Amino acid sequence: MKKIKCVISYDGTEFAGFQIQPKQRTVQGEIEKVLEKIHKGKSIRIHPSGRTDAGVHAIRQVIHFETPLNLKEKNWKQAMNTVAPDDIIVKEVAFVEDTFHARYSACEKEYRYYVSNKQDKDVFKRHYVYQFPYQLAIEPMQEACRYFEGTHDFTTFSSAKATIKGSKIRTLTHVSCNVVDRDQIEFIFRGNGFLYNMVRIMVGALLDIGQGRRKPDDIVILLEKMDRRLLGETAPPEGLYLWDIIYEQSI
Amino acid sequence: MKKIKCVISYDGTEFAGFQIQPKQRTVQGEIEKVLEKIHKGKSIRIHPSGRTDAGVHAIRQVIHFETPLNLKEKNWKQAMNTVAPDDIIVKEVAFVEDTFHARYSACEKEYRYYVSNKQDKDVFKRHYVYQFPYQLAIEPMQEACRYFEGTHDFTTFSSAKATIKGSKIRTLTHVSCNVVDRDQIEFIFRGNGFLYNMVRIMVGALLDIGQGRRKPDDIVILLEKMDRRLLGETAPPEGLYLWDIIYEQSI
Repeated sequence: MKKIKCVISYDGTEFAGFQIQPKQRTVQGEIEKVLEKIHKGKSIRIHPSGRTDAGVHAIRQVIHFETPLNLKEKNWKQAMNTVAPDDIIVKEVAFVEDTFHARYSACEKEYRYYVSNKQDKDVFKRHYVYQFPYQLAIEPMQEACRYFEGTHDFTTFSSAKATIKGSKIRTLTHVSCNVVDRDQIEFIFRGNGFLYNMVRIMVGALLDIGQGRRKPDDIVILLEKMDRRLLGETAPPEGLYLWDIIYEQSI
Repeated sequence: MKKIKCVISYDGTEFAGFQIQPKQRTVQGEIEKVLEKIHKGKSIRIHPSGRTDAGVHAIRQVIHFETPLNLKEKNWKQAMNTVAPDDIIVKEVAFVEDTFHARYSACEKEYRYYVSNKQDKDVFKRHYVYQFPYQLAIEPMQEACRYFEGTHDFTTFSSAKATIKGSKIRTLTHVSCNVVDRDQIEFIFRGNGFLYNMVRIMVGALLDIGQGRRKPDDIVILLEKMDRRLLGETAPPEGLYLWDIIYEQSI
């Protein structure tokens, strides 16, 4: 058996999320179908760095799986892309050590969230950015981003639907907000882990701050309160991209 | 009755083309539904500058219609956008003279066609550019563009499915090909009229030239032969945008 690591990109629009579910079109379901074809009917289970929700995109999601096939490393990418649906692409394939795990070996993850702040909506971007036509002040959002950086209990910023029982303490190494390409705002979040819906809940709070409905340093208090009922709307999935997964150099 | 001109934009991906058809989702069908709602059940026929095919996009398509409603000019845009589906947007609405006709008053039309010339496909652009991974030389395509300019019989560059019996002589005032944004190639076509599939057939021929499968001055001979069987593949719809319709200043 060989262990394989793949970097994949997908447009989340037409998926009911990453995780396989009966009667739903999911990223995992489609990739496992691709591998089943390559393995002539044998089913192969894949393991991602983490799940993404319905409508959430990935620029570089990482998965691993084991294969009994004797296919050369350089031929895997094309073999998979030939049978992959047109909203998934395999960017890189590499043989890895048995100890590699897409989820447990990851050191850091990066997510980006895009908001388009134009008055008129752009029909071509409806699945790819959050079109938010209300006035936003950038500086207060930038100040608020800094309060997210560091190690905190992110209970306030996790979904009520979250099922994990463990610690909600996470370390964010980089949080920023910048205007890119005129009316487009880019939020970057990098950290050692993210709770369910955490990025979208943080973006929702940042947009409240950008509109002047909260002050930047409310973030400090919100983090301390550890109460998820304190927050308003979760930002929608179409603006969110799983941007990259960082592993240790040695892998 | 008031005559109204609208500039609309749509993402063609989820439409079976512009023209209304039974049991199909079309741009005309959706806009007429919007107008029926605004007119409380009364059906209103719209007239476009011309049709677009399934998958073809519009940045500025123009339509006109007549209304018995007494709604102010400035309120029409929002009234329509409130009920429009999320892949159509009304950009401008204006009251016009009775003599205005979206199709017959138009002097010129502009189409643009986008080709992405990267090795790897980009899942986010699959509906919005033609992803063409084979090597293309720009200069021969630029030379060929010049042979399309001027007044010609475009029979060779019209679809076999074309039903019009009239003249196939058209005047193109501008045809160009340029690299924009690294691996993206933009073709611009401006003229007094276009035959069915004409832009996509011209792009197909230009891509043959870019690959060295034809010489640029083949265009001259192809135009003279007036035989549509001489040409290869029609470029796919996802790269094509109806970019603008130009009317006389006075309207």
